[in-house]
Amino acid sequence: MTTGRNAVRVGLLGCGIVGGATARVLTEQAATLSERAGVRIDLAKVAVRDLSKPRTVQLPDEVWTADAWSVVKDPTIDVIVETIGGVEPARDLIIEAARSGKHIVTANKELLSTLGEKVMGAAEQAGVDLLFEGSVAGGIPIIRPMKESLAGDRVTRVMGIVNGTTNFILTRMSETGETFEAALGEAERLGYPELDPSADIEGHDAAAKLAILASLAFNARVVASDVEREGISKVTPEDVAAAHELGYEIKLLAVAEESEGQVSARVNPAMLPRLHPLAAVRDVFNAVFVVGAEAGELMFLGRGAGGGPTASAVVGDIVEIARNVATGGRATGCTCYRDKAQMRPPHEANVRYYVVLSVLDQPGVLAAVAGVFAAHEISIASVRQEGIGEEATLALITHVGTEGRHDETFAELETLDSVRSIDSRLRVVGTAEA
Amino acid sequence: MTTGRNAVRVGLLGCGIVGGATARVLTEQAATLSERAGVRIDLAKVAVRDLSKPRTVQLPDEVWTADAWSVVKDPTIDVIVETIGGVEPARDLIIEAARSGKHIVTANKELLSTLGEKVMGAAEQAGVDLLFEGSVAGGIPIIRPMKESLAGDRVTRVMGIVNGTTNFILTRMSETGETFEAALGEAERLGYPELDPSADIEGHDAAAKLAILASLAFNARVVASDVEREGISKVTPEDVAAAHELGYEIKLLAVAEESEGQVSARVNPAMLPRLHPLAAVRDVFNAVFVVGAEAGELMFLGRGAGGGPTASAVVGDIVEIARNVATGGRATGCTCYRDKAQMRPPHEANVRYYVVLSVLDQPGVLAAVAGVFAAHEISIASVRQEGIGEEATLALITHVGTEGRHDETFAELETLDSVRSIDSRLRVVGTAEA
Repeated sequence: MTTGRNAVRVGLLGCGIVGGATARVLTEQAATLSERAGVRIDLAKVAVRDLSKPRTVQLPDEVWTADAWSVVKDPTIDVIVETIGGVEPARDLIIEAARSGKHIVTANKELLSTLGEKVMGAAEQAGVDLLFEGSVAGGIPIIRPMKESLAGDRVTRVMGIVNGTTNFILTRMSETGETFEAALGEAERLGYPELDPSADIEGHDAAAKLAILASLAFNARVVASDVEREGISKVTPEDVAAAHELGYEIKLLAVAEESEGQVSARVNPAMLPRLHPLAAVRDVFNAVFVVGAEAGELMFLGRGAGGGPTASAVVGDIVEIARNVATGGRATGCTCYRDKAQMRPPHEANVRYYVVLSVLDQPGVLAAVAGVFAAHEISIASVRQEGIGEEATLALITHVGTEGRHDETFAELETLDSVRSIDSRLRVVGTAEA
Repeated sequence: MTTGRNAVRVGLLGCGIVGGATARVLTEQAATLSERAGVRIDLAKVAVRDLSKPRTVQLPDEVWTADAWSVVKDPTIDVIVETIGGVEPARDLIIEAARSGKHIVTANKELLSTLGEKVMGAAEQAGVDLLFEGSVAGGIPIIRPMKESLAGDRVTRVMGIVNGTTNFILTRMSETGETFEAALGEAERLGYPELDPSADIEGHDAAAKLAILASLAFNARVVASDVEREGISKVTPEDVAAAHELGYEIKLLAVAEESEGQVSARVNPAMLPRLHPLAAVRDVFNAVFVVGAEAGELMFLGRGAGGGPTASAVVGDIVEIARNVATGGRATGCTCYRDKAQMRPPHEANVRYYVVLSVLDQPGVLAAVAGVFAAHEISIASVRQEGIGEEATLALITHVGTEGRHDETFAELETLDSVRSIDSRLRVVGTAEA
């Protein structure tokens, strides 16, 4: 790129919630941003699908266009900021922008968590920067700390609450005792879920973000389909109440770990001890908890979505690129030095479980149940027997064992005459053991 | 600097707790670090005061030297890592290193918070990088997020628990009810305070870190002597108990704010609502809470001191510099575009107070006290009358008003016949109001 410029020209693709906030910040804070970048930052073009739609940001007529392709090909544009979301046409637009020598800023988690290698490869090959701070956890600085600040450390685990809608729902369930359906209704009334709520509820959104975080943490590419995934729709008020009694909160946790050269990555509702810093993350707040061999435990907390927070991240990336254009520098590129991560087979992951069994109220039940755990070499950390007659239950928490052995144990428990059903089964995370 | 190098040579000054951990990480993680930097990182020289002292890290004999000056002048060295601490001789060594064209990594808060302008100016003039992630809050990535990730935002407030020793003491006082002296004794037994504990207890250490954070937050230089400062030695078990009853925790808070172009910066024990994320920061953990106009509330939590955590930050800086040496890039330089910050006169700062008065147990006392507050236009948010006879007290929390009016109010209260003494006076921070 040319150095010693007077201005860096930005082409913005999309002007929805994130794009609109980005345009507003670039316009309102133009003087401050230029001071920080050492060069003027001009919002030169904004491509939208529908030019007739009213916009909250006021820009000169010649800035608006309905032709995104003309923007990525415009030789006067230095930086393309993609806020369209989704895989297509974002992928083709970004690759074309890179080929045209433009730096790229994107907050597109779907694209990066599926075709990250392809778009980053295109940027690398073209010698342009591709920054994506807004793609995970909105306004929380996490990409740059992982890529740069922790480049001197060895991350062993990254664990996050990275979906605001599900955290809002679980917070409501925890604080009011209401059902999943009622809490989801409240979230929808407030407009929190994506248009298709299953992206949030079933953990797809969190899995995409975890794939990006895990790739940065372990310098090896993890894609969304590598992430095991379970949503929160089966969490009941009884689970929440039981968690409280035991000193836990239930959270949708995204967890990635590396050990012995293998990476495991999963998103699932989990019981987290109340004293764990992530347990206090309420409502739509997001947080990422990172364990470094040297730094120890770190947590990054903030707002994970919304126009302002995501624009904060996106404009931060634009300023970094503008600084680089002014000085001839380059941002840190793709850090997946090890290419594809070697994923640990899910049944080999080391986990702990909380499990609730409906049992017959008769002597010898506990002995039979304990015998099944022992046969599969899963130790029991705690057990509570409750209710009588038809309502009798056993609630157990296990010590660490593989997912496979837990599966086998639970399958065999269901064959016992004295066990009516397994009513609940939740991972236990954030303890000294796991 | 030369680009396209095969190796970047590091000269380390000091090999104490931080320097020793830095040497260990550079040695143990050499392969990984080289992969991340795109160039080999060699620990070429380590300067120590006493060559005969046994060291935990094993290095070839020719690496060790007692002559720090020979290292900063060595033409084969690319990066000087200063872990000596204190102003002299660190300042002269860093300035000489910059003049000799070497990049600099330092964790020296004393130097940066007093003569930051001088050393950064020397680096700027010489065209070398000066990075200092380890200078504030140890292993918590905070400098880079403030300089780069938040470069697209407008920070209005930064608030931190940035001294581990005092947070350990206040956590003990909160959780066991013991006195300041007893908790300090326990901290000393565990080796937490600096050699001179007053640096921790009286808030000097926190003030130095706040000066650095405020300079980054507001792009204007704030030095340690700009920071108002009050230590924790006067905090009593009674204060802690009263705070709990009202739903607060007492923390040593470092707070910097900008409004109307003026910056205020202060370190003092303060009452913080229990639901505030900083209130849950326990023991020796540190946390920095940042409010951005766009990002909203952010918090960065982790270990604020110790060899491993600080080395994590220092080595991250070394990797960034090595990447730059390899690619010809430059790190973000000094971001104090506005030079010296305009400090708000302390008496004009807007604050809230918790105050406890010993009063005579007679009718009309509350009316007299309330009258004094009203005369100085300080509103009372809550008041509790307790005890009888000689033990009668009034505990009040005020609404927001200037420090000056609060001072005048308290001075006049002491002249009332019905007020025996002011027993306690603590700022209230982290509420919706202030």
